[in-house]
Amino acid sequence: MKRLTSLDSGFLFLEKRNQPLHVAFLTLLRPPPDAPEDFARKMVERLRSYGAPLPPFNQRLERRLGAGYWVEDPEFDIDQHVIHLSLPPPGRVRDLLAMVSRMHASHLDRAYPLWRLYVIEGVEGGRIATYSKVHHAVADGVAGTRLMLKSMSTDPEQILPPTWALPPRGRRERPAGLLAAPVGRAAKLAAGFRAAFGSVPGVARELRETWHEARIGHPDVVTGAAAPGCVLNQPVSASRRFAAQTYSQLRAKKAARALGCTVNDVVLGMCASALRQYLSGLQALPAAPLIAGVPVSTRRDHSESGNQIAFMLVNLGTHLADPASRLAAIRASVDHNKQRFVRMKAAEILGYSVGLMAPGLFNMLTVKRPQHLAFNLVISNVPGQRSTLYWQGCEVESMYPVSVVADGMALNISLTSRADGLDFGLIACRRTLPHVQRLLDYLEVGLQEIEALAERTG
Amino acid sequence: MKRLTSLDSGFLFLEKRNQPLHVAFLTLLRPPPDAPEDFARKMVERLRSYGAPLPPFNQRLERRLGAGYWVEDPEFDIDQHVIHLSLPPPGRVRDLLAMVSRMHASHLDRAYPLWRLYVIEGVEGGRIATYSKVHHAVADGVAGTRLMLKSMSTDPEQILPPTWALPPRGRRERPAGLLAAPVGRAAKLAAGFRAAFGSVPGVARELRETWHEARIGHPDVVTGAAAPGCVLNQPVSASRRFAAQTYSQLRAKKAARALGCTVNDVVLGMCASALRQYLSGLQALPAAPLIAGVPVSTRRDHSESGNQIAFMLVNLGTHLADPASRLAAIRASVDHNKQRFVRMKAAEILGYSVGLMAPGLFNMLTVKRPQHLAFNLVISNVPGQRSTLYWQGCEVESMYPVSVVADGMALNISLTSRADGLDFGLIACRRTLPHVQRLLDYLEVGLQEIEALAERTG
Repeated sequence: MKRLTSLDSGFLFLEKRNQPLHVAFLTLLRPPPDAPEDFARKMVERLRSYGAPLPPFNQRLERRLGAGYWVEDPEFDIDQHVIHLSLPPPGRVRDLLAMVSRMHASHLDRAYPLWRLYVIEGVEGGRIATYSKVHHAVADGVAGTRLMLKSMSTDPEQILPPTWALPPRGRRERPAGLLAAPVGRAAKLAAGFRAAFGSVPGVARELRETWHEARIGHPDVVTGAAAPGCVLNQPVSASRRFAAQTYSQLRAKKAARALGCTVNDVVLGMCASALRQYLSGLQALPAAPLIAGVPVSTRRDHSESGNQIAFMLVNLGTHLADPASRLAAIRASVDHNKQRFVRMKAAEILGYSVGLMAPGLFNMLTVKRPQHLAFNLVISNVPGQRSTLYWQGCEVESMYPVSVVADGMALNISLTSRADGLDFGLIACRRTLPHVQRLLDYLEVGLQEIEALAERTG
Repeated sequence: MKRLTSLDSGFLFLEKRNQPLHVAFLTLLRPPPDAPEDFARKMVERLRSYGAPLPPFNQRLERRLGAGYWVEDPEFDIDQHVIHLSLPPPGRVRDLLAMVSRMHASHLDRAYPLWRLYVIEGVEGGRIATYSKVHHAVADGVAGTRLMLKSMSTDPEQILPPTWALPPRGRRERPAGLLAAPVGRAAKLAAGFRAAFGSVPGVARELRETWHEARIGHPDVVTGAAAPGCVLNQPVSASRRFAAQTYSQLRAKKAARALGCTVNDVVLGMCASALRQYLSGLQALPAAPLIAGVPVSTRRDHSESGNQIAFMLVNLGTHLADPASRLAAIRASVDHNKQRFVRMKAAEILGYSVGLMAPGLFNMLTVKRPQHLAFNLVISNVPGQRSTLYWQGCEVESMYPVSVVADGMALNISLTSRADGLDFGLIACRRTLPHVQRLLDYLEVGLQEIEALAERTG
């Protein structure tokens, strides 16, 4: 039995009918070529055989004497957590995305441990998908990714226990070739987040300062001013639209190298271009540039400090029609942010970055009136695997994050960066933002624009 | 634009995270023998082609100046309402029931018209299932059944428009052979419910009297006293367990005839036996008999008054081990109820019966403390079709109601009675009531007990 932290309580308190606060991943898996017809069913049976999960996956909420606790569920029932589904033929990816949209709109039941894994067979090309969700009060996106990667192997033949059954000792034996930090730190990281956020005032002050600086027009924040009012920042419905696509990491890297910037800068450039085109199409492009809340790794060398994640407020230059000027604005804004991080202690950076993981909490702390938004959307680039990984004997083709949409934050763009791909997952309020899937095409256009810039430079 | 009635508002207000207030039906459909492989997909495409629904299916909630209204949805999107799913092979019925359990636990989004139809292919035996849900504020179970039946035909070749697209004129052209009243009355009935409930005090008084009479031990209420405390009457989780099975209407009729009672008496006897066995297994059988809230048709002749539905509080005699004494107790209690109805006006009967449809509302009106429960569960027998019906070219094999579970009402037993079957749908809180599917076997045992009684009588 463990008392809820203030962060846990915050996530639970802020959850609403139209605003479930869980994070998820959609993975696409390719079974081995010799897989029998009942491969998926056998996989589900094997997963369900891990019926005695370890903390926090065996804990549910309980109120005792007015306080909230995490308590081991004495009646843990794996059937509640591992669900087997199928797409109707022909199993188009668009049908899968529609299914994920619906599943992501549905709340986890607080009477049970707050996670669920769906195994979905029948995806075109003989593939299987998984959609795994966990409540934000249990794990955030980064910790979730780390845990998922730990259940994957570089060896197609090696079948590791699923996330919920990984022994704590196993957390040190990470599969080789991961971009991520030592996996033993995943738990520490999560704990760190909580510890840091326990002392909210320091973090909140830093967030407020950032926001204040932006408003009074600090020269390095390029155009100054707070995030403009935008259709992205409306109350949301309970329905979601999920759009996902993989872009070439190789192309992004090549362009970044030629332009002397990072892949993350390219990613932000792609998003800025796509958002500009999308909002223009809706006749809703603000005159002032959109501000993105961006968590990034602050690792600049090859040390093991890769799990130091920071939160930046980035000017996306969406008011600029010229791709070169837009990218320049983004880079100047990112550089300004990086200088700021030096001033913050490691724990503070962690706490600072928690803001990004909790739009609701963040809003509560920093946003009094909608016109004083600190940012318009979160763009989150989660480090994934460097080499091809396998899960339950299947090749992991892609791993799309499905993040949180909340009142005032109708769109979230998250991506997992792998050696050979950038897996973008866009989650939006279905009602507020029409045709979100168009952003996928616009992201490709954005990448092409940056490639053209790189060509001119080279 | 139409202002919400107090009943609509009540249903919306009483809805909670763990207590969604929608009602649903699961149907099992047999496609024609020559159906092509993409039959289900074509069916979904045809259903989606009805993209301009009629009231109330095109209306969503809106708050204006603090009041709630039903407003035509200007952006109606059929893809939000007609969903195409598939069961993973081999498509066992137990997997279908698990899927329905999950779908029934999920809220309808109030930003859209409050209904949804799922078409689920891949059910064993080459069958298709539909799960259709509608919010209680839009339609109750009876009105919902009527509307569904209207979209069905006795002619396999005739494909009628789906429920949401049925022209109001069509409401008079009911398919022949229905047990139900003229279909034009479905809308009137719903309106009647609302009108009757608008004047809540009269109905509430009658309900209170019934309850009071039961408590002070009216001789015809057999053992007197209010409904006993029971595991059925606990706070519920947000998760559901749905169990469904068809029993022979022919067997029930035969036994009823031999015993000189109604099929509904036999149904109640089956439920009483099943509940006794189930609760005994949990070591939780109350010493006092369970009380069921039972809506019944008061039609006693062949007139068109079949849509007069009444609400009875029936002593189930679950404390009696002897099936004969148990059935006698039930019959005495039912007879007492029937006398009461004569005293009530038609509109009052409607209002009275609304109580059964709205456990939450009912609780609010009549239950102050859990030990003063008016009844332990609702057992609802909804009249279905008399002859074989077809929907979208498929034979309708069965039609299971999926009703409401609420705090204090962890189990609901509803059934559709057809010429050749009693389609029982049992919905329960997954956490509170373990192994609800056992009740299905116990219902069969209950039927056998009554058949044995009938044999002795005959």
